[in-house]
Amino acid sequence: MPPAHPFDFDAVDGDTLHEECGVFGMIGVTDAANFVALGLHALQHRGQEAGGIVSYHPEHGFNSARRFGYVRDNFTKQSLMETLPGALAIGHVRYSTAGSKGAQIRDVQPFFGEFSMGGAAIAHNGNITNAEALRRELIERGSIFQSSSDSECIIHLMARSLQRDIPARMEDALRRVEGAFSVVAMTRTKLIGVRDALGVRPLVLGKVGDGWCLSSETCALDIIGAEYVREIEPGEMVVITEKGVESTHPFRSRNSRFCIFEHVYFSRPDSIIGGRSVYETRRQIGVELAREAPIEADLVCPVPDSGTPAAIGYAHESGIPYGMGIIRNQYMGRTFIEPTEQIRNMGVRLKLNVNRALIRGKRVVLVDDSVVRGTTSRKIKEMILDAGAAEVHFRIASPPTAWPCFYGVDTPQREKLLAATMSEDEMCEHLGVDSLKFISLDGLYRAAGESEGRNNSCPQYCDACFSGEYPVEPADMIEKGFKLKAAE
Amino acid sequence: MPPAHPFDFDAVDGDTLHEECGVFGMIGVTDAANFVALGLHALQHRGQEAGGIVSYHPEHGFNSARRFGYVRDNFTKQSLMETLPGALAIGHVRYSTAGSKGAQIRDVQPFFGEFSMGGAAIAHNGNITNAEALRRELIERGSIFQSSSDSECIIHLMARSLQRDIPARMEDALRRVEGAFSVVAMTRTKLIGVRDALGVRPLVLGKVGDGWCLSSETCALDIIGAEYVREIEPGEMVVITEKGVESTHPFRSRNSRFCIFEHVYFSRPDSIIGGRSVYETRRQIGVELAREAPIEADLVCPVPDSGTPAAIGYAHESGIPYGMGIIRNQYMGRTFIEPTEQIRNMGVRLKLNVNRALIRGKRVVLVDDSVVRGTTSRKIKEMILDAGAAEVHFRIASPPTAWPCFYGVDTPQREKLLAATMSEDEMCEHLGVDSLKFISLDGLYRAAGESEGRNNSCPQYCDACFSGEYPVEPADMIEKGFKLKAAE
Amino acid sequence: MPPAHPFDFDAVDGDTLHEECGVFGMIGVTDAANFVALGLHALQHRGQEAGGIVSYHPEHGFNSARRFGYVRDNFTKQSLMETLPGALAIGHVRYSTAGSKGAQIRDVQPFFGEFSMGGAAIAHNGNITNAEALRRELIERGSIFQSSSDSECIIHLMARSLQRDIPARMEDALRRVEGAFSVVAMTRTKLIGVRDALGVRPLVLGKVGDGWCLSSETCALDIIGAEYVREIEPGEMVVITEKGVESTHPFRSRNSRFCIFEHVYFSRPDSIIGGRSVYETRRQIGVELAREAPIEADLVCPVPDSGTPAAIGYAHESGIPYGMGIIRNQYMGRTFIEPTEQIRNMGVRLKLNVNRALIRGKRVVLVDDSVVRGTTSRKIKEMILDAGAAEVHFRIASPPTAWPCFYGVDTPQREKLLAATMSEDEMCEHLGVDSLKFISLDGLYRAAGESEGRNNSCPQYCDACFSGEYPVEPADMIEKGFKLKAAE
Amino acid sequence: MPPAHPFDFDAVDGDTLHEECGVFGMIGVTDAANFVALGLHALQHRGQEAGGIVSYHPEHGFNSARRFGYVRDNFTKQSLMETLPGALAIGHVRYSTAGSKGAQIRDVQPFFGEFSMGGAAIAHNGNITNAEALRRELIERGSIFQSSSDSECIIHLMARSLQRDIPARMEDALRRVEGAFSVVAMTRTKLIGVRDALGVRPLVLGKVGDGWCLSSETCALDIIGAEYVREIEPGEMVVITEKGVESTHPFRSRNSRFCIFEHVYFSRPDSIIGGRSVYETRRQIGVELAREAPIEADLVCPVPDSGTPAAIGYAHESGIPYGMGIIRNQYMGRTFIEPTEQIRNMGVRLKLNVNRALIRGKRVVLVDDSVVRGTTSRKIKEMILDAGAAEVHFRIASPPTAWPCFYGVDTPQREKLLAATMSEDEMCEHLGVDSLKFISLDGLYRAAGESEGRNNSCPQYCDACFSGEYPVEPADMIEKGFKLKAAE
Repeated sequence: MPPAHPFDFDAVDGDTLHEECGVFGMIGVTDAANFVALGLHALQHRGQEAGGIVSYHPEHGFNSARRFGYVRDNFTKQSLMETLPGALAIGHVRYSTAGSKGAQIRDVQPFFGEFSMGGAAIAHNGNITNAEALRRELIERGSIFQSSSDSECIIHLMARSLQRDIPARMEDALRRVEGAFSVVAMTRTKLIGVRDALGVRPLVLGKVGDGWCLSSETCALDIIGAEYVREIEPGEMVVITEKGVESTHPFRSRNSRFCIFEHVYFSRPDSIIGGRSVYETRRQIGVELAREAPIEADLVCPVPDSGTPAAIGYAHESGIPYGMGIIRNQYMGRTFIEPTEQIRNMGVRLKLNVNRALIRGKRVVLVDDSVVRGTTSRKIKEMILDAGAAEVHFRIASPPTAWPCFYGVDTPQREKLLAATMSEDEMCEHLGVDSLKFISLDGLYRAAGESEGRNNSCPQYCDACFSGEYPVEPADMIEKGFKLKAAE
Repeated sequence: MPPAHPFDFDAVDGDTLHEECGVFGMIGVTDAANFVALGLHALQHRGQEAGGIVSYHPEHGFNSARRFGYVRDNFTKQSLMETLPGALAIGHVRYSTAGSKGAQIRDVQPFFGEFSMGGAAIAHNGNITNAEALRRELIERGSIFQSSSDSECIIHLMARSLQRDIPARMEDALRRVEGAFSVVAMTRTKLIGVRDALGVRPLVLGKVGDGWCLSSETCALDIIGAEYVREIEPGEMVVITEKGVESTHPFRSRNSRFCIFEHVYFSRPDSIIGGRSVYETRRQIGVELAREAPIEADLVCPVPDSGTPAAIGYAHESGIPYGMGIIRNQYMGRTFIEPTEQIRNMGVRLKLNVNRALIRGKRVVLVDDSVVRGTTSRKIKEMILDAGAAEVHFRIASPPTAWPCFYGVDTPQREKLLAATMSEDEMCEHLGVDSLKFISLDGLYRAAGESEGRNNSCPQYCDACFSGEYPVEPADMIEKGFKLKAAE
Repeated sequence: MPPAHPFDFDAVDGDTLHEECGVFGMIGVTDAANFVALGLHALQHRGQEAGGIVSYHPEHGFNSARRFGYVRDNFTKQSLMETLPGALAIGHVRYSTAGSKGAQIRDVQPFFGEFSMGGAAIAHNGNITNAEALRRELIERGSIFQSSSDSECIIHLMARSLQRDIPARMEDALRRVEGAFSVVAMTRTKLIGVRDALGVRPLVLGKVGDGWCLSSETCALDIIGAEYVREIEPGEMVVITEKGVESTHPFRSRNSRFCIFEHVYFSRPDSIIGGRSVYETRRQIGVELAREAPIEADLVCPVPDSGTPAAIGYAHESGIPYGMGIIRNQYMGRTFIEPTEQIRNMGVRLKLNVNRALIRGKRVVLVDDSVVRGTTSRKIKEMILDAGAAEVHFRIASPPTAWPCFYGVDTPQREKLLAATMSEDEMCEHLGVDSLKFISLDGLYRAAGESEGRNNSCPQYCDACFSGEYPVEPADMIEKGFKLKAAE
Repeated sequence: MPPAHPFDFDAVDGDTLHEECGVFGMIGVTDAANFVALGLHALQHRGQEAGGIVSYHPEHGFNSARRFGYVRDNFTKQSLMETLPGALAIGHVRYSTAGSKGAQIRDVQPFFGEFSMGGAAIAHNGNITNAEALRRELIERGSIFQSSSDSECIIHLMARSLQRDIPARMEDALRRVEGAFSVVAMTRTKLIGVRDALGVRPLVLGKVGDGWCLSSETCALDIIGAEYVREIEPGEMVVITEKGVESTHPFRSRNSRFCIFEHVYFSRPDSIIGGRSVYETRRQIGVELAREAPIEADLVCPVPDSGTPAAIGYAHESGIPYGMGIIRNQYMGRTFIEPTEQIRNMGVRLKLNVNRALIRGKRVVLVDDSVVRGTTSRKIKEMILDAGAAEVHFRIASPPTAWPCFYGVDTPQREKLLAATMSEDEMCEHLGVDSLKFISLDGLYRAAGESEGRNNSCPQYCDACFSGEYPVEPADMIEKGFKLKAAE
């Protein structure tokens, strides 16, 4: 059951971006669901609201469990895990967009479908930009949707495919789907992974003993002791059975446009993306920031926890001492059930406290990952000044976020993004800080390993949230009235 | 209800010390219980198993709620907080020792007693070293104990006191009690705070608007926006009513022996103790360590999160770059309900992962707060070496922990403490690291602001866990066969 | 969530027949779902495992709630009922067959489907005898089933119908369905009721104020204060809107074959079926039994509660005193969660106790509704003899149950039915009673108001469980190997 | 946890009397707690709100479990019963008075106390009429009460007794206690049973194999297959060990004054009291009523279920046919959690429905067990007339209830009792029935086996609720202003 009257602290606070999903699949080990549970625990930062696992066992068939709450509170229990036997399993963690009418367990992936040639389960990270049109078409033809999730389209498209085997039906289905998708799926004998042609969302292949796994990030390979093999390539489909991994490239090849925000914020710092350490990229962002936007100051502080690597880089490059000026309460979560008025009004003070003794009288550089609505930044600035700081300088580890993401990240509407309506100077004044500097788009690309910066004619990443250049047209949103940059 | 078959990950892992309690009291504000809940949330690190709040309202009398789990999961709910009306409330968070026969809600404080002159509630941080003798005596006289908690003695002693008012009865009771105690209590009109004669456990006074509060640490004043007034003095009792604060010193004055481990580990880094920032003390421990035990290396890494400030100090003083070599999973908790075998065996990998890209090929200095049994240290060393580190050097921000604490900290039996049976060199070999150094006792005192180091004839702190010098004789334990240092 | 490890006492005991469902629908009143909840409470005897309600409100759309457990424990709560606003609602209670792999909330009706012309919800009492063939066909065409319930076929058939409005689609769908069905359905503006061409399962129309309701039995009209209007006719469809009731007869007219076991056992004694009181029919069965199978005895006792009316009739007709020789524990339910071994072995003693003082030394006539496997009858006989009865004579208010029902009643496999393998005399010996007599089929028909008894060429009722004459061929079962009487 | 916002249907309806408790104890069998659970299930009618069991095992010590809800929903679970090992156990079911500030699990018996010579648990059926005075005295002396239950006095009195063994301490304690009590208690080796000097509440001794049990009623012996040995005598204490049963009579012997209402309503019809079948007494009440208050009519109907035996007797004696004119919904319970307004207003229709076809046009005799406030009787009369009855005659199986009970039965205040303010004729007019007759006090005594009727100089039973003659002075109530009959 969904929690009664939950209150999403971040949602109201409205000032962070959220990855919407993480996926993990495993084949070829005893009790694969246990591995999936551990993998999902390591991917929990990609989706904290709910999780689901489907497993297959030749005697017991397909079994599934879907639960609200953290993986560690549900999928670590003997009694639940015993209901998920078999050597093949896939799982999903999800974040749910605030303001939806109420989370429902039936919206939690993986989705399962029984076809004439057997069952299949599917879990998806990303977003389908033509989902509403597809849904209308499928309903018109007589499909019954059981969830409000756009990902359910894939399973219905598969059900209606004329192909004779499930991987071929999945190809059929995904050809109709636009947007970003990293899919993990399973039949009774196969673990399947697919990445969209642009490779917007991550998906990696790992190996542990005789088993294989697919994961959104490498940090989930580490927890199960798996060896990192390689990334699934943009447009690639892998079908893994007991005999090994078969690879095909069914989707039209295009230049890769991996999401650069995965480097800035979404992925865990101990993950490796494109052969590059996320931690190192973030530290390097701090170094670039210190070069692009130096300032005379006494202390460099991260806004915990996401600003920490960039703050370390900034401090190192600038020579200004690094310190923990803001302390994070480790017992915070994102949602509250039926909270009191006082809790609703607490805002950021519920999770962050200023280290007053350290801050007092100092000129402080605060390093944060991004500015979305700016509400949190304002409150932090106030807390820092209340504690007696002499000056407050914000350094932001990403360019101004001026455009919403339609590829699987929960962003506010464009009007609510501070950078959509204000220049950097206006934002500085609005926030009331002594200085505010964002890293440049080129600086960010350099920190991510592109020594020449951004190739504007053919960008190496998807950076639509900064540039407004959408590599896949967001069809549903345009139908609803969203204006592209060119149209402004 | 207590969780069914909980599995305490830390307990089995057996390698951390735990503060057993935090207390908070509030008077003179509307809905005092809401303030207490926020205070307890900020003190959650002092006790994560359970929490309780008692409030008093002239019309609705005394009300109480006691719950297993985090404060934020229970005491933020409108529906529960409405049952705790009134301008006067106290609360308690507690940690429960592993291996006890099973946590019971009736053991959760505050305890309440109805006396002929009215009711009183009491919450206690510390440990009563003669509790078993007192309990036997009270049962002999006809008292019925409702819990297995030693703190319940206080309320029974109060019930049997001949004094006519409750503060006087509390004085009477506490005179019979030996050990460490910071007590927060309430009657229908008074908020009462008491600290034992040695002041082993912390207790501070704060003010917000017309209201007053008592708290284990100052970080809980910050969250409710209260101003820090002063510490309650060792041996002092304060009785707070609408008219203000009355102070008496009913207990024999002695030299203060505040727990030095509060500085090292228990208290939050953003708290102020004895006028001194906990963060600054910890950072300074790192500085002292770098002076006492320098090493040539490429990277200083904290064991998160408690080793972080000392690692920052070590890096700064040594000039070796600081980096996040170990990443902590933010979604870990301490206990699991009916966990699978695999979860039971995961150990530290469930909460920590090595940042392999950063570590590879480097000579790494790992800074941790303490070594208890050494099991975690061994596992971390292995993870670091597996990730390809060239050398691993441990630097520990406290002296060797060779003696158990009997004043409110959960420590293993003496035989299980690594430092009780091994020298520093033996421990280094046992852990299999390239070097292992603990800060000296004098170095620790210097870092805590005692520029001359430890005054051995009259130590400024309780450091029994390092020195074996117990400022209060642990009577119950001696009766059970514990040997003091002098007796060895 | 389904209860963990439930233990179905009746299922193991294996000695009762169970109606599988009850349906109720309401239109034209404020908060229709409240009326539906009351109606379902009155129909709880038709399905005790789970219940569901769907409502529609112009502003809030369709809402649904499905819960395991009794109606009174779920659908009486303010907090739940507030989530089901609107003037139009339908509901369902269900019994689940023992031995199924585990009840799932997704199998609980009503089922909901979104079509291109709007949503519809449907609830069904009965059983579809060609469901498996339909399911295979629908999956082949690309439908995704969300439940293991055969009733879900109807909604998928509707989704694929070419008709333009929902009642027409329902007609289309039900034409493909074989078996017994009394359906209650709703769109945004219409309440729809349908009965199969034979009218095997009951469905009645009621009126309360400006509102209309459809119900499995009249006892549910009484609880909401509704007036009984009429039965829905076999093969009739009614579409009720604000403007009134429209009736059509889309299904091929045939002779009605109402289930005679509804009179014997399933329906509540205070319901009216076919213009006839169920209580009166049952009392009359007792009268017929006394005439057909008289015996010299001291006491007539019902096996509570279902044998009571027939026992009253038997006592009255025979002149033997009536008494409560067996007392029923009012606090029994059907299922236990993770029961102890002792509970598993208690059998009938957990719910029935002999009134020893009354029974001792007496010749007792026990009147029961039916004999299924005979296990309960044996145990009751033993309890009665243990209590000192001089003689035990069983009189059964139905003919021998020798054939399974495929029209919505949960019956054991044919081999497990005592009467399938034994003659009346063999059963008497098997049960170890002094005499055993069943009412004759003709006697039963007479008691049900057919003064001439059964019309063997064209029976007035469905009595397949007694006669083996199935009015609709059970296609799925025949495919699975079930042998019809003619084939034996 | 107590259910949130429960709504006690009976309490608001206000029209029934409730026994407040049932007790059961067992010694000398493996897993005694399982037997106790079964016994309590059979005694559930004596207390439906909550239940508790304490057991003792030499290795595992005393264990207890206390739960809200039915015995069958809690104490049948393997997982719970495993926590209650040992060959010795006692248990309690309780009803809680409506209007109390909220049921608390700490008020649920058995109560447990640790004394210097070991622990003891105690469960109590009855009421202590000087509990408030005792409580004040005990608090004055320094006892801390953990519950609001008056029964807790007993355990505190025992704790303060100077005696050296527990049975002697219990004697000491019970000598200070006034009122009605049937106590079941246990130490580590003894099962103890005590009945007050008047024997107001029942308590019987049974034997099963090598084990012994104590129970409120004999129906609980039947369920565990125990043999009925004898009643505990008024003023007797039995101490049962492995060696057998020792009996003493520590309390001043007086004439027995057993509660006559146990015969009329509280006890189960299949129990034996004073060597007499409760069912037979009730049937005989019907016979007496038919003689005392004959009427010309067509049908005798019980108000189910408690009026059934008397209705059978009335019908038999009068020759008027017996029938089920009112049908009871078997799925009703006493309390609802947060019910909707509609449920709150449903009243008796939620649990009773009229069998309209049977009632129509008939002159009906309704036999009920008692009239308390008269609200239910009025509603039933209306339902019967709405269904078309020609006449309604009430026959009541007890004399007018004009006085509250202070010996363990929950009765409304005197002013709320219909018979306290009206004569029989006034009540008849108030209820609007064609005739209303109560059985006479003498008739009731005759039905209970006293062929000469009531001995007014020395009544054989406690009939204070009818006569106002209280065999034990209700001290606490008199202090609160209650006026005895003599004082009116």
